[in-house]
Amino acid sequence: MKTSKPAKDVVANMLAKDNFSQWLGVEVLAANLGGCTIQMTIRKEMLNAFGTVHGGVTFAFADSALAFSSNSYGRISVALEVSMSYPVAVRLGDKLTAVAEEVSLTNKIGVYFITVKNQENQIVGVFKGTVYRTNKALKYT
Amino acid sequence: MKTSKPAKDVVANMLAKDNFSQWLGVEVLAANLGGCTIQMTIRKEMLNAFGTVHGGVTFAFADSALAFSSNSYGRISVALEVSMSYPVAVRLGDKLTAVAEEVSLTNKIGVYFITVKNQENQIVGVFKGTVYRTNKALKYT
Amino acid sequence: MKTSKPAKDVVANMLAKDNFSQWLGVEVLAANLGGCTIQMTIRKEMLNAFGTVHGGVTFAFADSALAFSSNSYGRISVALEVSMSYPVAVRLGDKLTAVAEEVSLTNKIGVYFITVKNQENQIVGVFKGTVYRTNKALKYT
Amino acid sequence: MKTSKPAKDVVANMLAKDNFSQWLGVEVLAANLGGCTIQMTIRKEMLNAFGTVHGGVTFAFADSALAFSSNSYGRISVALEVSMSYPVAVRLGDKLTAVAEEVSLTNKIGVYFITVKNQENQIVGVFKGTVYRTNKALKYT
Repeated sequence: MKTSKPAKDVVANMLAKDNFSQWLGVEVLAANLGGCTIQMTIRKEMLNAFGTVHGGVTFAFADSALAFSSNSYGRISVALEVSMSYPVAVRLGDKLTAVAEEVSLTNKIGVYFITVKNQENQIVGVFKGTVYRTNKALKYT
Repeated sequence: MKTSKPAKDVVANMLAKDNFSQWLGVEVLAANLGGCTIQMTIRKEMLNAFGTVHGGVTFAFADSALAFSSNSYGRISVALEVSMSYPVAVRLGDKLTAVAEEVSLTNKIGVYFITVKNQENQIVGVFKGTVYRTNKALKYT
Repeated sequence: MKTSKPAKDVVANMLAKDNFSQWLGVEVLAANLGGCTIQMTIRKEMLNAFGTVHGGVTFAFADSALAFSSNSYGRISVALEVSMSYPVAVRLGDKLTAVAEEVSLTNKIGVYFITVKNQENQIVGVFKGTVYRTNKALKYT
Repeated sequence: MKTSKPAKDVVANMLAKDNFSQWLGVEVLAANLGGCTIQMTIRKEMLNAFGTVHGGVTFAFADSALAFSSNSYGRISVALEVSMSYPVAVRLGDKLTAVAEEVSLTNKIGVYFITVKNQENQIVGVFKGTVYRTNKALKYT
């Protein structure tokens, strides 16, 4: 995915103000209008009772990719509905990569499809998100 | 929801080993076979770029309720697919309560419905989760 | 569920103009503001390659319940996103009942939860739907 | 998408026994292991109370693509959970094309992503489906 300068700036500014994405350790590898590629590494405070990764962490990572992608146009977009499948467990130390792509964009609604892979290129999460596009501009575009 | 002793023990043991639910600050108010009620309070490290709560946090909270409810029988259950709607934004300081109920339980599959409310009793999250019930026993039942 | 007269009229008028719900054989047992109970019976043209019911039929039945419930206020509402789980197979001759309830209603968004049972009271479908509430009035209220 | 001979035969045999896909008027344009492209045209008995297409019809069309794709290996696979977004309304006479692709395949679980377009190449449906792969062989492979 090639990086668009305005989208890259929006996403960098969003990440700089996004406490929870920072806690996750999200890094932005690429950002474009409607899409992005981000990365994070699993730490022990992200594990659940079974010693695998809490589903909420993998989800939150994909959800950050959704926020970055859908807000990349500089117009505030909020998630209405999201769904996720977990085909393979995520483990301590895994380096995850999420790739978000825009499937559909109308004036009010955007639909995004996001896959999360581990360092062995296995798909560990499949995410679909639908956002409502408000008329408000992001301040930091 | 009345509390069942065995379910309560399973959930207490799960929470004691669940690092991320502890980071969230999850407290168990009630636990039963197939259901539970849990609570948490939003801290500033849970906010996103807009100063509202990162969707992944609200999701993860509901996902903890899913894990506690579906594992309450002492049989390891893993989420296959989850979906969530966000009707109302969550804010700093909000005290959230999630109530999980079992909608359907067969030998292999459980379906759970979870609502998340804020301290004003507004519904801020509507969650549906489908789990696969393995044949493995939880160690701490 | 008690029946509200205005909601009942809206739903009766909707069903009278809804070709596909008629093809399904949908009957309205009760209709209220934000909820309804409907019924249908599985015919052989609704089966799939395995001789069980095509998932699209069970889904469409729940989707009719979503439309009736979310439009019951007389304001046109359109589905944005829906999800469904299928815990138990549906078979030829099954009499299905869908019960729709409103989980959340804001000015723009409604969230509905719908369960579909067979004649033995087994849950065969668990549906969640999110609608966008337009400002247009239904003509037949 | 190139057509695989065994997958093509499985799908042709499935369609020949699938009453509801026949009622929809589904035609298979291509079939491969884990994917397919199918087409149908909207008739007036598929409309809802607003004169647009009943969401259940578009859903059922995507669900047929899910069944064909996930069963293409000759192993019976059943939908556990599906979700769909509707970015654009579907209308009488629209010719719809669904393209299904396999996102993830493990021994027990397959995840599929399906887009539905109209004749103007607009995306009218975005579908994600998770199937459980049984150990039973399809009879007609």
